[in-house]
Amino acid sequence: MPNERELIAKLGQIFGKAPKQVLCGIGDDTAVFWPDEEYILLWTIDSLIEGVHFDLSHTSLKLLGRKALAVNLSDIAAMGGEPQYALLALGWPPQRDLQGALELAAGMQEMAREYGTVLIGGDTVGSPQGLTISLTVLGRVKPTELLRRNGAKAGDLIYVTGPLGQAAAGLELLRHKLELPEEDKNLVLQSFLDPQPEVVAGRLLARHQLATSLIDLSDGVASDLYQICLSSQTGAVVEAERVPITEAVKMVAALTAQDPLDLALKGGEDYRLLFTSAPDKKTEVKKCFAQANLPEPCCIGRIISGKEVRLRSASREVEISGTGFDHFPSGASRIG
Amino acid sequence: MPNERELIAKLGQIFGKAPKQVLCGIGDDTAVFWPDEEYILLWTIDSLIEGVHFDLSHTSLKLLGRKALAVNLSDIAAMGGEPQYALLALGWPPQRDLQGALELAAGMQEMAREYGTVLIGGDTVGSPQGLTISLTVLGRVKPTELLRRNGAKAGDLIYVTGPLGQAAAGLELLRHKLELPEEDKNLVLQSFLDPQPEVVAGRLLARHQLATSLIDLSDGVASDLYQICLSSQTGAVVEAERVPITEAVKMVAALTAQDPLDLALKGGEDYRLLFTSAPDKKTEVKKCFAQANLPEPCCIGRIISGKEVRLRSASREVEISGTGFDHFPSGASRIG
Repeated sequence: MPNERELIAKLGQIFGKAPKQVLCGIGDDTAVFWPDEEYILLWTIDSLIEGVHFDLSHTSLKLLGRKALAVNLSDIAAMGGEPQYALLALGWPPQRDLQGALELAAGMQEMAREYGTVLIGGDTVGSPQGLTISLTVLGRVKPTELLRRNGAKAGDLIYVTGPLGQAAAGLELLRHKLELPEEDKNLVLQSFLDPQPEVVAGRLLARHQLATSLIDLSDGVASDLYQICLSSQTGAVVEAERVPITEAVKMVAALTAQDPLDLALKGGEDYRLLFTSAPDKKTEVKKCFAQANLPEPCCIGRIISGKEVRLRSASREVEISGTGFDHFPSGASRIG
Repeated sequence: MPNERELIAKLGQIFGKAPKQVLCGIGDDTAVFWPDEEYILLWTIDSLIEGVHFDLSHTSLKLLGRKALAVNLSDIAAMGGEPQYALLALGWPPQRDLQGALELAAGMQEMAREYGTVLIGGDTVGSPQGLTISLTVLGRVKPTELLRRNGAKAGDLIYVTGPLGQAAAGLELLRHKLELPEEDKNLVLQSFLDPQPEVVAGRLLARHQLATSLIDLSDGVASDLYQICLSSQTGAVVEAERVPITEAVKMVAALTAQDPLDLALKGGEDYRLLFTSAPDKKTEVKKCFAQANLPEPCCIGRIISGKEVRLRSASREVEISGTGFDHFPSGASRIG
């Protein structure tokens, strides 16, 4: 049985020293900090549950720690914000070696440092039924830079910040033990096991006022773009031939007898950003991303009046509203 | 299988409308709010896991919802703060009726309203291995009123805000199906199943600068007072005959062949406050609590120099430092 005080002390060491505006980090009843003047706060919570969100025969505890924080940081990115602080509630199975909790924490701390976030406290609880990781993250944004889901307007262009369906392809590869060329295999596995929250792209869109609405792709375009449409009271058309799909995703689709578009538009956990932007900002979007050394966002369609998300190809047009990855009961779905 | 959108919409209805300073509650990637000027923020997370922290054959989903929030509010109370907002991450077993999630949420909302807290968002996830409830709460306090664990000084008196061991007695009663007179039974069951966070008492201590240190009793005096001693670099003596123990606790102790002092000092989940206070504030403590219509806090001992928590009775004196309810692997333990 792991020694509790030892665990807490070691987690504190891994998470390191808190910045000056944090009055209490680890070691009191709550974390305590000064909020920054002139900023509004962004606040999210996400839980990852063993057997539902992850399978420890597919990933390492270190990568799991990275991903658990990454999905929370992605929520902050999706508002145009900067993540600042995190608290962890770790449900650790007593039958597991304590060393594993430290690997998980080390992965989390690595991700935290990469995105300027500080872990300032939390809880450990025993969880005999399996590992559960709940993280809550606070971020900040200037009120004039907040990017919500509800600002899309008919005529706006729809962009995604990278190729789609890679995480879903990675999961398929692991589930069906598919063989792929090394490079392609690594690409989809990394997308699934070690997603990168697009905090930099989100800040860029916010700072330069480039987007009318913004969301992160956790459930797939068909579902997440539909959320934008619901919030903005618009419809959308996605052009099938514009959807960015890598060769790796096409190979996985072929090996599993699926339409690559289904992986790309209905696969979960890509954690790319999807944003809408006025058509007259097209050049500026391209320029700003280039200047920031970020890949050029890919325009996949257009906001229209109406209520549906439609997929248009040369041969036909179909409604795909809300047909993304269904997370419940096996995944995450946002209440707020 | 519960319908996800239905669940989310209904939870939104139960949690109601957010106040004006909340820019986004339910329905975007994160909750968004303006922090209050001149306040510092208090932030906590707690997870309750089925089979570890609760047994649904002992409690109702509504009471569980109340308690899940109460333990978080107790953390805010333990800093002298006012709770303001909460986010919920609910891991709901798909085999359970959706109606139960609404009962849980209704209990949570009832507790939230009683303590001026607003639920402004969260996540639902499927959790086939059992119900898990993670809640994160934000509160506020003026920096001059913050009450930490580290201010106790030799000579300070040690107080608790109510009788001890009742929650532990309630758990014993349920576990061993004990028979007690109706009134005593209700007392210990309510203490265990529906604890009241001492937000009002915490605010009183903070506002009137009555305490040198403060903690909430989640693990029992022996453990929680030891946390104060560790943080304050002091020791403490508890006088056995001053420990407030109700007849109900004495009865449960007799029926289970335990020393009532063990239930009182080492039983978890009382969620009373323990505070230390300079001896010259004794009259003021009494007066302030009386004026606020709160029960008079009970002085159980004194802070001394040294490093130990000692229990003194007429016949002997023993060290009890850190011997409280051991939560790991079967409970909660604070990292920070």
